[in-house]
Amino acid sequence: MVTIPVQIPRQPAAYDVLIEPHLLHRLGEVLKARIRCERTVIITDVNVARWYLPIVENSLHAHGMHTIPIVVPAGEDHKTLDTVRWIYETMLDRGTDRSCAVIALGGGVIGDMSGFVAATYMRGLPLVQVPTTLLAQVDAAIGGKTGVNLPRGKNLVGAFYQPILVAVDPETLDTLPDRIYMAAFGEVIKYGCIQDPALLDMLERQWSRIRTRDPDFLAEIIARCVTVKAAVVQADEYDTGRRQILNFGHTIGHALEAATAYTVYQHGEAILWGMWAAGWLSVQKGYLSPEELGAIEHWIERIPKPTLRRFKVDQLWYHIAVDKKVRDQTLHFILVGPIGRARVEPVTETEVRAAITALLERFVE
Amino acid sequence: MVTIPVQIPRQPAAYDVLIEPHLLHRLGEVLKARIRCERTVIITDVNVARWYLPIVENSLHAHGMHTIPIVVPAGEDHKTLDTVRWIYETMLDRGTDRSCAVIALGGGVIGDMSGFVAATYMRGLPLVQVPTTLLAQVDAAIGGKTGVNLPRGKNLVGAFYQPILVAVDPETLDTLPDRIYMAAFGEVIKYGCIQDPALLDMLERQWSRIRTRDPDFLAEIIARCVTVKAAVVQADEYDTGRRQILNFGHTIGHALEAATAYTVYQHGEAILWGMWAAGWLSVQKGYLSPEELGAIEHWIERIPKPTLRRFKVDQLWYHIAVDKKVRDQTLHFILVGPIGRARVEPVTETEVRAAITALLERFVE
Repeated sequence: MVTIPVQIPRQPAAYDVLIEPHLLHRLGEVLKARIRCERTVIITDVNVARWYLPIVENSLHAHGMHTIPIVVPAGEDHKTLDTVRWIYETMLDRGTDRSCAVIALGGGVIGDMSGFVAATYMRGLPLVQVPTTLLAQVDAAIGGKTGVNLPRGKNLVGAFYQPILVAVDPETLDTLPDRIYMAAFGEVIKYGCIQDPALLDMLERQWSRIRTRDPDFLAEIIARCVTVKAAVVQADEYDTGRRQILNFGHTIGHALEAATAYTVYQHGEAILWGMWAAGWLSVQKGYLSPEELGAIEHWIERIPKPTLRRFKVDQLWYHIAVDKKVRDQTLHFILVGPIGRARVEPVTETEVRAAITALLERFVE
Repeated sequence: MVTIPVQIPRQPAAYDVLIEPHLLHRLGEVLKARIRCERTVIITDVNVARWYLPIVENSLHAHGMHTIPIVVPAGEDHKTLDTVRWIYETMLDRGTDRSCAVIALGGGVIGDMSGFVAATYMRGLPLVQVPTTLLAQVDAAIGGKTGVNLPRGKNLVGAFYQPILVAVDPETLDTLPDRIYMAAFGEVIKYGCIQDPALLDMLERQWSRIRTRDPDFLAEIIARCVTVKAAVVQADEYDTGRRQILNFGHTIGHALEAATAYTVYQHGEAILWGMWAAGWLSVQKGYLSPEELGAIEHWIERIPKPTLRRFKVDQLWYHIAVDKKVRDQTLHFILVGPIGRARVEPVTETEVRAAITALLERFVE
């Protein structure tokens, strides 16, 4: 089993990210050894529940733990205060008190929302993240950000709340639709670009093991991503400085998502294009070689996705400007160069518009 | 100005509790020197707004700060997720972003609810507590507990979230109804009983200054209470151990409040009786002398309040048993003895029932 400790400054103790194929079947054993709660609330969605809730419950029951499953509808549309309120009420109905832990079993939506519930029910219950999508395993489940959406925007309500354990079982990726699975490699490639070039080499050499979803290889890949994210989060829990490097590709990526109302591109697909645009700007600034930008382009081509639409530059810039990343009229942008080294720098509107223009010229057919 | 630093372990920095008559008029100057936010959201209720919102806004405007006042209905009935949601939406309407701070201007309800909003809006904005009731000044505003009610109970949703500053102006107590003002001395007397016997002597010798609401004397009293609370909270932010001593008198006090649906007794009044009952049990255990219990009784008589009703012991025990303080079938109870020293000890149902019986026999006419 791969164990990656995450030591957040000022948190009472480090917590571990455990990564191992088949771990879901051993979750009861692992929890029994690590947490004192006899009763756990398992928050999951209808899709994940169908595949994995019985495995988790059986494993916990086999180790004498009582489970309170709470199953919510699937999808970002349900990541709302109304769902949170319904979860609170259901937890009360089922007698949840401060002696219980919360297990978040699912993808990013479940992780964010269950994390918020755990942070706020009776001022906080211990939280165990059990991410079941690749995106959640390499990103959302690590770092302590929780959140729910308001009608006017995503994650406008939330809290920083660290789990006591993250348990990753790459076998859960078996049931992911191919597009969802592949898109998450956008985030994996991001970690390679900002900090771990060797990760990109691994992907390159063993791409067939990615295609077959080899759980042992995926465990290695996930472990490298988690290692990068944990290191960055440890240095900047509250996202006020260095943690911004995790947003490489996200400024323009988010604009592509927002401009299409989050209905056309997967997050990982959008940030692949965002990384190319940020890479292009990095080339203009002399940090990155054209060959390295070509390597980023290679990954964009490798991951199947919808074509880039004929956006207007103004339209994408609008979404960047209203995004919370623009502060005090300065846009902090993440550049890379060489591959594996990220830089946070103020950039001008003109520079960002030029990068968007280059992106559209290069990829819109 | 009295300045009491509060150093919570694992928090990025200590924060100060400032106590001074007329401080509200100087709030702009104080904030300008201490926080970087140019814009502040002031959350308050209709009653407090009438007296103090103009003073606070004028003071902030005089120091170049922009204010966003949000005025909610007064009272515990409005400490709900619906009000919180309305505050979030109003903050969005008014362009509140992460560069803004939240000022909680009001009593415990405003402090708890604004604190929760500050903890969760965009994953946390800096929070300044400006408590305007004696109860909030000596208790609720210190310690980082925030919360809102669900239909089934008080503070079932909340977070631990420390302010960056607490500003206490004893002149705001001028406008408190006499009963609300006097009842808060229940909490003041509690601090004396658990940790600071000299505080009780001060009250005794200068009771007339309490009656006239002398702001300089009140500043001294509040400072002593805050000093005790800060020391206890620093040792146990998350309320898992030593912080329980702050609940002296609260187990039976809460039961008196709950059994009357929070409509008959003020919180401070209820805990006065709760402290007597806990004191009685402390006498039985040999920790407290009958004379010391007499001193507690003296304070009960001094603070005017409704008579103690003819409760059934079963009825009060029921509310204790469902209260979150009963864990794993063990009731942890706070005893004192001698005055100024608190002890957290497991007690039996029989012992608690005996203390309730003694209380009713002594005070029900």
